[in-house]
Amino acid sequence: MTKILSGAGLRGQSAGQTALCTVGKASSGLTYRGYGIDVLASKASFEEVAYLLLYGALPNRTQLHNYEQKLMSLRSLPEELKAVLELIPKDAHPMDVMRTGCSFLGNLEPELPFEKQPSLGLHTADRLIATLPAIVVYWYRFSHDGVRVDTHNMHVQSLAGHFLTMLHDVEPSKLHTQVMNASLILYAEHEFNASTFTARVCASTMSDMFSCVTGGIGSLRGPLHGGANEAAMDMIEPWKTPDEAEAELLKKLANKEMVMGFGHAIYSESDPRNEIIKQWSKKLSEEVGDTCLYAVSERCEAVMWREKKLFCNADFFHASAYRFMGIPTKLFTPIFVCARVTGWAAHVMEQRANNRIIRPSADYIGPDHADWVALDQRP
Amino acid sequence: MTKILSGAGLRGQSAGQTALCTVGKASSGLTYRGYGIDVLASKASFEEVAYLLLYGALPNRTQLHNYEQKLMSLRSLPEELKAVLELIPKDAHPMDVMRTGCSFLGNLEPELPFEKQPSLGLHTADRLIATLPAIVVYWYRFSHDGVRVDTHNMHVQSLAGHFLTMLHDVEPSKLHTQVMNASLILYAEHEFNASTFTARVCASTMSDMFSCVTGGIGSLRGPLHGGANEAAMDMIEPWKTPDEAEAELLKKLANKEMVMGFGHAIYSESDPRNEIIKQWSKKLSEEVGDTCLYAVSERCEAVMWREKKLFCNADFFHASAYRFMGIPTKLFTPIFVCARVTGWAAHVMEQRANNRIIRPSADYIGPDHADWVALDQRP
Repeated sequence: MTKILSGAGLRGQSAGQTALCTVGKASSGLTYRGYGIDVLASKASFEEVAYLLLYGALPNRTQLHNYEQKLMSLRSLPEELKAVLELIPKDAHPMDVMRTGCSFLGNLEPELPFEKQPSLGLHTADRLIATLPAIVVYWYRFSHDGVRVDTHNMHVQSLAGHFLTMLHDVEPSKLHTQVMNASLILYAEHEFNASTFTARVCASTMSDMFSCVTGGIGSLRGPLHGGANEAAMDMIEPWKTPDEAEAELLKKLANKEMVMGFGHAIYSESDPRNEIIKQWSKKLSEEVGDTCLYAVSERCEAVMWREKKLFCNADFFHASAYRFMGIPTKLFTPIFVCARVTGWAAHVMEQRANNRIIRPSADYIGPDHADWVALDQRP
Repeated sequence: MTKILSGAGLRGQSAGQTALCTVGKASSGLTYRGYGIDVLASKASFEEVAYLLLYGALPNRTQLHNYEQKLMSLRSLPEELKAVLELIPKDAHPMDVMRTGCSFLGNLEPELPFEKQPSLGLHTADRLIATLPAIVVYWYRFSHDGVRVDTHNMHVQSLAGHFLTMLHDVEPSKLHTQVMNASLILYAEHEFNASTFTARVCASTMSDMFSCVTGGIGSLRGPLHGGANEAAMDMIEPWKTPDEAEAELLKKLANKEMVMGFGHAIYSESDPRNEIIKQWSKKLSEEVGDTCLYAVSERCEAVMWREKKLFCNADFFHASAYRFMGIPTKLFTPIFVCARVTGWAAHVMEQRANNRIIRPSADYIGPDHADWVALDQRP
């Protein structure tokens, strides 16, 4: 009855249908509902893209305005949630904080059973999009700076600007808002990656949206998935010149160490997101008068291609871009969450609309039969 | 590149290898590492089964004693976790409480990166087995009774007895301890069910044990998965006689309503766990002098078989058994968590030992290409 699949990890195997995204399809690279990632990242706001993914089409001016207002109105964190975040130590893993904050909010604001929601979960999706940035920044600023940030900031409309304002206590420049906006769009959705698949498996049991997103956060936490931009930063940060970077990188390759931020499970020749974030990183580098980090990053790209034919994925130039905007490394993966929650939620809604519980089989490799041995007879 | 699978929900498709469990294999029904579920449920303690699943073999007397001592020593909840549980309202969903409690503990006691653990995660697994019963009962007793239970009870050795003692403030009878012990064994492991598969997908990103178990709890919360024993209780509780039960059940079937606690995605003729828990339910029924609930349950079983050729799964007689032991309905699925955490953790360790990230593909059914339309031109 059980088919043996050719690849481990379900690689290349279809686990369902989606109308949300294509990854690596010929001549399109990455699309969200048919729109190329290059067009979206240069022309849209993150709110427009979230609307596209969740509501099914680009909003008109009125719809977009109403959606922006709705997301702003949903920014406040309940006092109990703030109390929980204040109990989490400074040295906690920020992804543990987000996973816990999302899960705790589900206790206070449980979703209606989704069969009672004609929208399949939109309200909770919007609530999470509006609050996840606040969850991580509230904890970060409280535990690191002793500051209780105002999460209900109504002066800054964009989620990109809201995140940076909570983090830095000042409204970001136009350039920083643009880059953060583009970054959130690039990370918003990526078909059946491991965290999205986690959310869909959870949704297939008819569980609630908070459980699905909590599960997604837990999977994105893994260093093989969401942690690559942080790992890239940790690697390049100590390197002071391109030549030093090249020498150190060659050493790593010779030692067969894993180098994060390169290659991809699905893309084989390039990651369409790289060119976009790389350009932004260059602009930021010029703005801050950087003479080191961007050049080091470029050299790494050249060396990895020359030596291994490996290309930068979305994560590699995100590292330098985030650093130029003064974002601490430990918040890199949490920003990924703030973006990807849109994709997770859209996939949960899609799973709910046409559901069968996801319950695969396994190839059994254990003993056929074992005989019971009484306690005192065991070796 | 993408293969089209015949069944939705990956049904009948292998998603990996396991040495932990067989489900529905000819003439064996359900085995844990080769041992039949009937033997384990009648001869073993839950602690022995947890050891079998996690450590790979049945313990000898010394190993079992040390393991029991270890689990007892790990029962205490940190003060911060208790504070979080006290912030969760009485009307919260108990599975949201467990998901949150598990996730929060991960902030306080993060796992070492698993490549630094020769054991692949055993310590965190044991900590979760020891604390999950306390997490849910502490919240339940505090929110419902205003009582802060002693979670570090060192008088009652078994986890089964510990759970019932925290819940009822008195040590349970031998019979109740036996039934709870058997129940935990029956629910401990079940191959690649949706919650276990969730945990494995999460583990495949190299994420931590707390994330994997948190994700598992979120999936088990779904009414298509872990909620069936509660749904069965809600259905049979109002029925006062077998005849009333039969009449009402026939009405439900005529209305094509879903009847929980019957049938199974993998088993086609019977669930080997049913016979075991049914016998215990009968014993408990006699002990408490019940003249209604067990008879109603038996009639439901007969009607469902006669009308639909559907058999009771593990959940159906669990409902009456738990009720006879004075367990509130809302704690039924949380008990499932207290048992299944052993299976989840064993699968996480197995995934870690031979890992490739689980990243399937999808069949794309959306638009091939969409052209950008400026905001004011949109309909």
